[in-house]
This record gives sequence, C-alpha cells and structure tokens, in this order.
Amino acid sequence: MYKDFITTVNAHESFGIISHFRPDGDAIGSTLALGLALRAMGKQVSLWNEDSVPSRYAFLTGADTIGSLPEAGAELPQVLICVDTGDWKRLGDIAPERFRDHPCIINIDHHGTNPGYGHINIVESPSAACGCIIFKLIKALGVEMTTPMADALYTAISTDTGSFQYSSTTPEVLRQVADLLECGVDVGRLNCRLYQEIPWDTLRVNAEVLNNMVVEHQGQISHYAMPAGTKARLGVGLEATKDLVDIVRVVEGVRVSAIFEDLEDGRIRISLRSKDPAINVANIAAHFGGGGHAMAAGIRMKGELNATKAAVLEKIKEEMNNAQ
Amino acid sequence: MYKDFITTVNAHESFGIISHFRPDGDAIGSTLALGLALRAMGKQVSLWNEDSVPSRYAFLTGADTIGSLPEAGAELPQVLICVDTGDWKRLGDIAPERFRDHPCIINIDHHGTNPGYGHINIVESPSAACGCIIFKLIKALGVEMTTPMADALYTAISTDTGSFQYSSTTPEVLRQVADLLECGVDVGRLNCRLYQEIPWDTLRVNAEVLNNMVVEHQGQISHYAMPAGTKARLGVGLEATKDLVDIVRVVEGVRVSAIFEDLEDGRIRISLRSKDPAINVANIAAHFGGGGHAMAAGIRMKGELNATKAAVLEKIKEEMNNAQ
Repeated sequence: MYKDFITTVNAHESFGIISHFRPDGDAIGSTLALGLALRAMGKQVSLWNEDSVPSRYAFLTGADTIGSLPEAGAELPQVLICVDTGDWKRLGDIAPERFRDHPCIINIDHHGTNPGYGHINIVESPSAACGCIIFKLIKALGVEMTTPMADALYTAISTDTGSFQYSSTTPEVLRQVADLLECGVDVGRLNCRLYQEIPWDTLRVNAEVLNNMVVEHQGQISHYAMPAGTKARLGVGLEATKDLVDIVRVVEGVRVSAIFEDLEDGRIRISLRSKDPAINVANIAAHFGGGGHAMAAGIRMKGELNATKAAVLEKIKEEMNNAQ
Repeated sequence: MYKDFITTVNAHESFGIISHFRPDGDAIGSTLALGLALRAMGKQVSLWNEDSVPSRYAFLTGADTIGSLPEAGAELPQVLICVDTGDWKRLGDIAPERFRDHPCIINIDHHGTNPGYGHINIVESPSAACGCIIFKLIKALGVEMTTPMADALYTAISTDTGSFQYSSTTPEVLRQVADLLECGVDVGRLNCRLYQEIPWDTLRVNAEVLNNMVVEHQGQISHYAMPAGTKARLGVGLEATKDLVDIVRVVEGVRVSAIFEDLEDGRIRISLRSKDPAINVANIAAHFGGGGHAMAAGIRMKGELNATKAAVLEKIKEEMNNAQ
C-alpha cells in the first residue's frame, strides 16, 4: 500500500488534503504534516476542512492555509487525500457529495471501523494516531522531516494519546516521538501551547462541574447534570461540554462516572465512563439504546433531565451490585 | 562512576535506600526500582523514608516495604544509597544526623545543585528524572528489568516530566520509556492510577481556586490568594495547596501567574510562574527576597495577605510594562 501511495504521489502534481469535520489535533496535525511534505516535493497542495482550525492548533505552521472547500464546479486537484477520517460522511455536510466521484482518493486512517472508501486505502487500525502513519509515509516518500512537520506530527500523536497516557501508546509510538524531537521540536514550548492555554469559557464550565458534581454510592459513582438553563447562563455551546466526564471521573475511588446534558434538540446526552474492568458501561448504555466500549460509552435519548438521570443511575447501581 | 557503583554493589550484602522527605513519584519510583533490582540479586535491602508513601504511589509493588528509619543505635546496612536527593539535609530531620558517619554512601541524583555528598556520586544533572539514571544502573548491573521495576521507573520518569511534557524530555528519555513498556508496563492502567485518582480534598481546593481566581491587566495576569480562613474552612493542609499555581496559569493568554497563601507561621508563601520568556519571574521574586528560575520562582515573606498581594502584583505589572 505504501508503494501505491508513493507511486501515486510521484505521478501527480496537485493534491487536496481533507480530514473530518470538528477536527481534533490528529486531524489538523496529519493534514499539516502531509501537506508540508508534499509542498516540500514541489507539489501544489490545498488543505481543507469543513470547520475552521480550533484556536488551540492555530499556531502550527501552515494552519492558516487550511481553508474551506472549493466552490461547486471548481477544478479539483488530481488526488484527494482523506486523513484521520474513519467514515466518508465524517468529511462533513458538503465534502462527501462534492468529492464522491473523484477518480483518485487516498484514505489514510487509524480507525478500525474504516470501510476502506478510497481507491488506495492505508488503514492501520492499531495505530495510536493517524499522525503515526503519516510519519511513516513521509519517511517512505524520502522527504526530510522539517521542524514544522515534526511539530504537526507531535501534536497529532500527543493529543490522540492523551499525552502518551492511553493504552494505544506503544514502544513504537514513543520511538517515533523521540525521532520527532530530534527534528527540532521544542517539547516544553509546544506542550505549553497545547496544554497550558485553556479558554476561560472552558475553565468556567469546569468550575461549574466541580462545584455541583455528586459523589455517591459509597464514593463509587460520580455524576453531574447540566440543565439547558445552566448552559444558557454560562453561554457555552456543545464544544465546551464535550469533555466534562473527564472532570468527574478523576475522583479518587470512583468506579463509574456519568454526565447528563440537555441538548438543543430536546434530547439528553449521557456520557458514561468506567475505571473498573468489572463494570461494562457499554451494557448500561445499550439498555437505553446507546452504545460504546466497556470503559467509555454514551447515550442520546428523549426524556426529562432529572428523570433520565435517576433511571440511568439506578441501572448503574444495579450493574455495580451485580459485579460485586 | 558506574564501575565504582557496580563494584560496591557486588562487594556488599546489605543496603539501605533512602530519598528526600515528602517524596514525589521520582523519589518513590527510584527507591523501589533500585530496591527490587538489588533484592533480585539476592541482597538484603531496607527501604526508608522519613515520610510515608503518598497514596498516589501506594499501589506500586514494594511500596509497602518502604518503612521509617531504623532506631538510633541499630545496626546499619553496609551501604547507604541516597536517591533523588540534591541536598543531604533533604533526607529529613533525623536521617542526616543518623547517617552522617556512614562509611559507604552512594549518592544518585539528577539535581544540578547536588554538591556530591556521597563517597560515590552519580550525579547527572541534565537527566529528566533520577529514574532515568536508575534505569541505566539496573542495566549496568545486568539485572533483568521486571514489570514491577519498569512500573516504578515509568512512574518516576512520567511524574517528573509532567507526562513527558517538560523540556527535560529528551529523545533518550522517550526511548528509555519505550524499553520500559516492553518490560510489561500496562501503560493505560498505570496512567489511570497515576493521573485519574485525585483526592476529593484536592478537587475541592481546585474548585475554590477556579471560583475565585482573578484575571486582570488585559487578561495577562492571573492570580489567587488563599487566606488562612479559607484553608481552615476547607480543612486542607500544605500538601493540597502546593500545585495551585498550575490551575491559574493555564488560562489562555495569561503571561504571568501568582498564588498567595497564608502560612501557619504567619508568613505568606508566593508562587510565581511565567509563560513568556520576556518576563523573568526570578527577578520579581528576588525583589522581595525570594528566588527561583526565569519561568518559576517563589517567595516566603512576612506580611499581611492583601497588602503583600498588592505589592507583588504592582511589581509584576512594572516588569510586564518594561518588557513590552
């Protein structure tokens, strides 16, 4: 597959690189690193995303060249490269339709569920980040890894592994990152940009959660519910609330955590986390029509916030009692 | 020096390993890894600390064998090994006196200020953690790195580098950690233990800081003052307040951060942090009789909390205006 990729890159002049909407560090970092590498080869490269670059990643070299999609009917680059996008529809609202008939699509991804929607598919599902694959592809292309490329790949890998804390962090990942540091990454400064610049809005929401979270069931369950009124009062949107479960789950001794949130469409969004392998939160989610993994699952369901919370907490306690 | 160390280890049968009081992850991890390695060689090993093992590290294999110092007059091991202790006095209140005349002291440390107080001194000041040196010493001894040793060294290195985010994280550090993972470290589970189990007390203090912190001077200065009354109300001691400056410094756009805290002895403890290389907080600290580094400094001074805060903030603003 790497051979097909290299042959295709060498045989063409113009490229468009795109990743999933609401891009994270891996999406942005993979887009930028590959884009910079192809530009270093003298290629014409357009970088696209249906959403703008989050402010957290705006400092990366080339981030200002990630633009919105070309107009309908505009001439497209010869090759379309999708990175970090496990499902064609996750390109956004416009891109899937716009690019559907493109004759040369390269799909580079690390999601196990990726169906292989490209003409060339480089899907390595055990990879910790798409950036780990891009790292190897840049080497395979024979392009010298510059500091801006290394910064972008470090960002991709660090953010997708929770600063190298997740179980996806293999020895190979750490050795790749060691190589990136040797390409000039200023590790102290880069991490300061990535992890030490939190928007005031986010901190206000974090305080709200810390002030109002509940720990119960002999300290084993932590949870927090955010009513629509609180969201309105704080003036925060969906983005600022997406990691709230990470705040309640860190309480010492807690085994299961839950966040309940009023959504604008009238449904309730529920995030569930387990720190105990004996308690599978995917089973709890499935009971209410949701899904996920044993340690991290979610539900979106119609209902009233407090009644829904009570029902889900009841089910959590039942599972915990069964597990004991 | 490694040769002297190996010769000394091979020539003796009984060892005592000690680290600084109020031990952190590097102190505990270094103590345990070296202790387990010497035990694997069939040596008699005592592990000591003047304070108990913080609950965060109590799960590590062997942590329950770290005990308090032998009684005065008791027979001492043939070799005393001090790890992660830059200054002989940092062994605590009792140990410096008790061990002063020991005939064979090995000093293994990574603090640049270490004066070399041992008979054998292995002081590698650029090392990110004492654990990085212990890693190499265990290899040099020819002892097989078991999973418990690797867990202890991972803990030492990860905690002393802020999960590999500090500028001390070199390519060599990451390659050592990659090797540790290959010795069986369960990286997801270990990090969960280290970073996802925060005492409720700490979270309550964090909430207090988030609720009451002030951001001023066009969003460039963040600060928080904790009066004695608040500490009493929250029922927290010195330990729970030591990292508070990390909470206020992460506000996006902030360049200088400060924490002011009433101490029990009537003095004020001030922690200063800079995120901007143009502003040297050591200069600000020095103005009030404190000290430290350009990006992290501190002061302990007599005074009233609010008046002291006002004076220090005035000085910070002066330095910031001069830097512009």
